Amino acid sequence: MDNFQFCSPTEFVFGKGSENRCGEFVKKYGGHKVLVHYGSGSAVRSGLIDRVTASLKAENIDYCLLGGVRPNPRDTKVYEGIELCRRENIDMLLCVGGGSVIDSAKAIALGVPYSGDFWDFYETGKAPEKVLPIGVVLTIAAAGSEGSGDTVITKENGMLKRGYGSDMLRSKFSIMDPELTETLPAYQTACGAADIMAHVFERYFTNTEEVEITDRLCEAVLLTMVKETPRVIADPHCYEARANIMWAGTVAHNNVIGVGRSQDWNSHGLEHELSGLYDCAHGAGLAVIMPAWMEYVRGHNVMRFAQAAVRVWGCQMDFQDPDRTALEGIYKFRKFLHEIGMPINFAELGAKEEDIPVLVEKLGVGSGKRPGFMELSAEDVANIYKIAARASL
Amino acid sequence: MDNFQFCSPTEFVFGKGSENRCGEFVKKYGGHKVLVHYGSGSAVRSGLIDRVTASLKAENIDYCLLGGVRPNPRDTKVYEGIELCRRENIDMLLCVGGGSVIDSAKAIALGVPYSGDFWDFYETGKAPEKVLPIGVVLTIAAAGSEGSGDTVITKENGMLKRGYGSDMLRSKFSIMDPELTETLPAYQTACGAADIMAHVFERYFTNTEEVEITDRLCEAVLLTMVKETPRVIADPHCYEARANIMWAGTVAHNNVIGVGRSQDWNSHGLEHELSGLYDCAHGAGLAVIMPAWMEYVRGHNVMRFAQAAVRVWGCQMDFQDPDRTALEGIYKFRKFLHEIGMPINFAELGAKEEDIPVLVEKLGVGSGKRPGFMELSAEDVANIYKIAARASL
Repeated sequence: MDNFQFCSPTEFVFGKGSENRCGEFVKKYGGHKVLVHYGSGSAVRSGLIDRVTASLKAENIDYCLLGGVRPNPRDTKVYEGIELCRRENIDMLLCVGGGSVIDSAKAIALGVPYSGDFWDFYETGKAPEKVLPIGVVLTIAAAGSEGSGDTVITKENGMLKRGYGSDMLRSKFSIMDPELTETLPAYQTACGAADIMAHVFERYFTNTEEVEITDRLCEAVLLTMVKETPRVIADPHCYEARANIMWAGTVAHNNVIGVGRSQDWNSHGLEHELSGLYDCAHGAGLAVIMPAWMEYVRGHNVMRFAQAAVRVWGCQMDFQDPDRTALEGIYKFRKFLHEIGMPINFAELGAKEEDIPVLVEKLGVGSGKRPGFMELSAEDVANIYKIAARASL
Repeated sequence: MDNFQFCSPTEFVFGKGSENRCGEFVKKYGGHKVLVHYGSGSAVRSGLIDRVTASLKAENIDYCLLGGVRPNPRDTKVYEGIELCRRENIDMLLCVGGGSVIDSAKAIALGVPYSGDFWDFYETGKAPEKVLPIGVVLTIAAAGSEGSGDTVITKENGMLKRGYGSDMLRSKFSIMDPELTETLPAYQTACGAADIMAHVFERYFTNTEEVEITDRLCEAVLLTMVKETPRVIADPHCYEARANIMWAGTVAHNNVIGVGRSQDWNSHGLEHELSGLYDCAHGAGLAVIMPAWMEYVRGHNVMRFAQAAVRVWGCQMDFQDPDRTALEGIYKFRKFLHEIGMPINFAELGAKEEDIPVLVEKLGVGSGKRPGFMELSAEDVANIYKIAARASL
């Protein structure tokens, strides 16, 4: 196991009706004037924003509203938020939404106390001196941003999608009511599930040996997703399955299951170019990329793929030919993604094979290699995109 | 899943040589004058206390030493610590040890800013207004106290063992170097493993239905212990196994795997009377009690015991007779405990069957019932002690 430091100080407030307590937690963590940051009109139409603001009013907490954050959140909305926060002397951000809203708020949190351009952090990876505190009311189990210090933003000029992470960006509190996710369309629910599973697999495929505890914890989350996702696709009002998925989504990405091991994140990297270019859902892009990546790199450590096949997908180990088991596991993963309604190739995603050179170019591998479980050259990346383009069951 | 709140703000600093950084973390969390609290002379003889104090000196942090905390830590040492802290204006406690030292420090942390007797918290369960901050340098994987807000203290007058818990008692930082555990005698290592597994089983046997994510996370920790414990018993210097066990021990008890479900804790309750009366190791007492408790209560939900047998112990499910599978799992647990060198009955522990009425009396069930997975009357408790007294493979 590698040496590590891990700190997940977020207070998670989980369960039915917990969104009505957000005023209490804003107060507890020192917010006096709050930016309520949200996405589409559904948070307004469902009455959620009203319940959130009522909870703030009950604690005499002042607030402004900033909606309109879109999936694959843009820098333009971040600049708008930074300006609004400065003008209104906002001292806490309250995100009502999923990964896009939370990631956008994290960018605002970086930008408000910073004299330069917030994009500097995403470009250079520099550490912030100060950030605005964040609170969350989560409305979809997916990105795990409610428990992580990570954020991904798309720069409209050039549609560049870049990630950044700092423990200072971890939310002070995250309110998680699984009931809020019951009205999500099946497609978005499935995208969330694909994202959660990808967060685990990106940690699972490691070059660090002898990491049984985190292997087993990763498998625990995956087994849960395999059981519970089809249940919510079949019955969106299955609270118990929604609840299991919601906690799984947090555990998948707050890094308690990923400490002390090298991680990959190349599937996320390759996917970001897809959602950057086609504006597809991140989870859908991952559903197309991840099994293709697995097929391509499995020879790097075939026993690790066989382990996943046996322990997660219930395959019988082929002791004569472990690669057969590895491939069976990848097949079962792709079949699972298809069955929950995810695309499994470029056509189903709305991407085009002839764009592969553009995707590779934008990823910027150049003549070097991307680090990860297996180092990837530009040619490797193109090959993975090709497998993804043409995949079928 | 039940509604829950969960916050584990401790910063974990994990890996080889990390104890040399304790001064840095004392400083980070605001300590100026520290009580270095430790147990037996082995922490001194091994040079660990010297390394810790050197690290403090390097950061110009003042300190006092208070050693001599014993297993099943006593109130007398707590009073000594409270007095010393007040006299010396200590503003942070640095625990160098395992559960006993950390639990003792938590009691001191409660007592120093409190005008009454610290024992009030253990007697009444009242919430503290203020506590001294705690830091940890962990020397054994066992109690999980480095990641929990729990503490157990024995009152010498009457040998009463009582527990208390508050999130305010969670350590600010916990330094975890698996190498420090390599010099532990095999018996203590095994006691720690038994304690870790008990912390998981106390959460696993629940009356809350549909908790797949925490079920699977619990099983992940158990599977890790089943794999790694025999390795460290066979080779105490197996760093990788020590590291896996150490993180497993923290995850087992910081409650990330126990949220949203009712828990049991009757095995811990019954064990506390054993270690209270005979001063045996807590883990050894649990090894005797826990399988006996399982045998006695399994009929309350035989499918849950069958699930553990199949998923953790690798038993084949007997679909005709699930109770046979349940019993096979319990047998395998007891056999595992025996194989790692744990006692499995009263004689091996140094307890006496004729003391059972005393144990039941001290537990104080009276004419009521102890709550838990299965409610236990005084007669139930006596029956469990009887099974434990006479158990064999």
